[in-house]
Amino acid sequence: MRNTDRTNTGHRVVIVGGGFGGLETAKNLSGSGLEISVIDQRNHHIFQPLLYQVATASLATSEIAWPIRSILARKKDVTTMLGTVTGVDADARQVLLMNGMRVPYDTLVLATGATHAYFGRDDWAPHAPGLKTIEDATTLRRRILSAFERAEMSHDPAERASLMTFVVIGAGPTGVELAGTIAELSRSTLPKEFRRIDTREARIILLEAGQQVLSGFAKNLSHYAKTSLEGLGVEVQLGEAVTEIDAAGVTVGAERIECETIIWAAGVKASPAADWMQADADRAGRVLVTDHLTLQGHPDVFAIGDTVNVAGPGGRPVPGIAPAAKQQGQYVARTIKKRLRGQDTKPFIYRHKGSLAQIGKRSAIIEFDKVQLKGWLAWWIWGVAHIFFLIEMRARVLIAVNWLWTHTLNRRGSRLITQSESSADRKDAPDGRL
Amino acid sequence: MRNTDRTNTGHRVVIVGGGFGGLETAKNLSGSGLEISVIDQRNHHIFQPLLYQVATASLATSEIAWPIRSILARKKDVTTMLGTVTGVDADARQVLLMNGMRVPYDTLVLATGATHAYFGRDDWAPHAPGLKTIEDATTLRRRILSAFERAEMSHDPAERASLMTFVVIGAGPTGVELAGTIAELSRSTLPKEFRRIDTREARIILLEAGQQVLSGFAKNLSHYAKTSLEGLGVEVQLGEAVTEIDAAGVTVGAERIECETIIWAAGVKASPAADWMQADADRAGRVLVTDHLTLQGHPDVFAIGDTVNVAGPGGRPVPGIAPAAKQQGQYVARTIKKRLRGQDTKPFIYRHKGSLAQIGKRSAIIEFDKVQLKGWLAWWIWGVAHIFFLIEMRARVLIAVNWLWTHTLNRRGSRLITQSESSADRKDAPDGRL
Repeated sequence: MRNTDRTNTGHRVVIVGGGFGGLETAKNLSGSGLEISVIDQRNHHIFQPLLYQVATASLATSEIAWPIRSILARKKDVTTMLGTVTGVDADARQVLLMNGMRVPYDTLVLATGATHAYFGRDDWAPHAPGLKTIEDATTLRRRILSAFERAEMSHDPAERASLMTFVVIGAGPTGVELAGTIAELSRSTLPKEFRRIDTREARIILLEAGQQVLSGFAKNLSHYAKTSLEGLGVEVQLGEAVTEIDAAGVTVGAERIECETIIWAAGVKASPAADWMQADADRAGRVLVTDHLTLQGHPDVFAIGDTVNVAGPGGRPVPGIAPAAKQQGQYVARTIKKRLRGQDTKPFIYRHKGSLAQIGKRSAIIEFDKVQLKGWLAWWIWGVAHIFFLIEMRARVLIAVNWLWTHTLNRRGSRLITQSESSADRKDAPDGRL
Repeated sequence: MRNTDRTNTGHRVVIVGGGFGGLETAKNLSGSGLEISVIDQRNHHIFQPLLYQVATASLATSEIAWPIRSILARKKDVTTMLGTVTGVDADARQVLLMNGMRVPYDTLVLATGATHAYFGRDDWAPHAPGLKTIEDATTLRRRILSAFERAEMSHDPAERASLMTFVVIGAGPTGVELAGTIAELSRSTLPKEFRRIDTREARIILLEAGQQVLSGFAKNLSHYAKTSLEGLGVEVQLGEAVTEIDAAGVTVGAERIECETIIWAAGVKASPAADWMQADADRAGRVLVTDHLTLQGHPDVFAIGDTVNVAGPGGRPVPGIAPAAKQQGQYVARTIKKRLRGQDTKPFIYRHKGSLAQIGKRSAIIEFDKVQLKGWLAWWIWGVAHIFFLIEMRARVLIAVNWLWTHTLNRRGSRLITQSESSADRKDAPDGRL
């Protein structure tokens, strides 16, 4: 396997982003005699598909996030760099970091992901946090748990009602998973611990502007998901867009909902990679790439994952999911190696392996090609698939133990309400970001 | 066991603080027909003896902290309240909360613990954080890990040296444990993950104003601890006090040490419980109590744990350790029940079961009465004792798995550098504290 072809020595590949796409590129390039660097503004890779379980107190942060340099420890030809990229000097072939450093490349791979977007209403952000980072997840966890704590202490019925109302905006996979697990938290985990409130009376409202939940799935599965959510106690409201969000609640159509906890799972926006390269992008900021996943006019610059808009089979865009990012990472690594050997390269072809979504405890929906599955069997497949794809064996063991615990004894392990940092952050900002 | 003697019904016991002392009081009072409340400003109990393992990335926060109301879920006569106490109205027999609420009591138990103190130099706090809370631990973790990350990126030898120097002030159990584990982190865990720096060159300096490390232990054990630390790569400097701490380093005696990471493990200060009761306190703010652990002139107010100064065998003060707090909690619960039955009560007598301290990997010292132990056998006893005393079975399993992992494969599981909270904290402050 290990091809240390010396003709490649000195060829510098810089990968920006330690998500699924970036790591897959690095792993598949390692051992080819290249100088590989991975730059990320955080020291950890996040297993995004399970981030909602941190927000809802089922998993601890360290169970779904691991240091990038630890994941890459055995890849001796890969250097991990903690730094925030602010731009690319394509003429000089250098990546610019916030601390003033310039990192030279021969080939550049942009795998910089996406963040949530408020469709021009950034003033909604403090009232309705989204879920992309570990800090987002602990913020949501603190807000959800604190709402129950404050309801327990409150003597004002209106305040208590507002504290016991949880609104999730957007019924994609993240919104559905969050609404389902908050419903379970209130119905199964918390009731026996509170003395003054009945946490089962909490309202969990899932708002979706479109006409169905999980619109990426077949209609009958989407319908099943909606019915399952309602069975868990979630109120699903379809077909009307949110028009206002403020400190006291949400306005959707003509209705006003007073609520303390609002979660944004509605929109995503790509990273600024397109801006760095002055490349064409779609409405969500995703950079448009060639069929070789390179930027127009920059054959030495690849872009992959959630920051990219590329057509898949039937002309539909490749979805922003982990398996798609990994396929692109593998493709880019293969293509770089072929080029350096002077071989022909083929266009990227996405192979959709299937879609999965969890709908609360012991239920999920799965769509593999023409095979559809729903209910507890789908949930087991969902669980096994996720554990299998977790990067580190250790996390697999711990998450397995944890799930066993949660589902047999109905307890949740990570119900910490942590505060903001206690001390000044003077020294913690190499790039102003740490 | 369950004595629901109706003559006690309606007697309200309010316990302030969900640490070892407070929880032990609540558990031992439960089932006696009383109305019991536990008030804490945090939603979680912390297993303090292992907090340094969070700071040094061996354990995750949720492995040593659990929601108080989860611990007390089955005690149906105990109500958990999240709130910050600001004072006590002893005449009206009410506890005052920051949100304006007043909680009436018939018997009050103050178990409010201690925090770190800078001996009048509070300006040192931002440069040299201490270790008392979960947030303190994640702050230290971020600083320690970020220092290595920044050293890897630095091209300036002086900056790199300063980043690779870690100063721990105070050689009590916390300081010794922190210095030992940072040494191991740099010598065993990190070297294979960095490409530009050799993390084994990191200097770990333990400063102690007194003449020995772990002064609570016998001289030969203390000497063994010092030698062991030096074997791990820690520079131990005794007999000189720190005179200055600033953003760039530490001054100790005539020596100036340039360093980016400074950890304070030198001084503690009791909670303001003495102020609330206008009671006499010692220099560290610990309230002076009667031999029944009540406050002078207030037989209905008990105080226990780290916030108290009470004499043990031989006139030496009872140490601020978990077993002492638990004994006091058990004593107070027994005394309250006896009083309500009209029985005689006896003074509190502390029984010292022994002292333990870990000195890095696979070494510890133990002193039980006249039995002394050191080395790996002591470490195993230390580990078993700590796992045994952890409150939740789940944590026991997870910590056992984790330690196995760390010590067989030399990896650390919780090496996350987390940022400050991402969103505004508008809604997260029931008492201005959450």
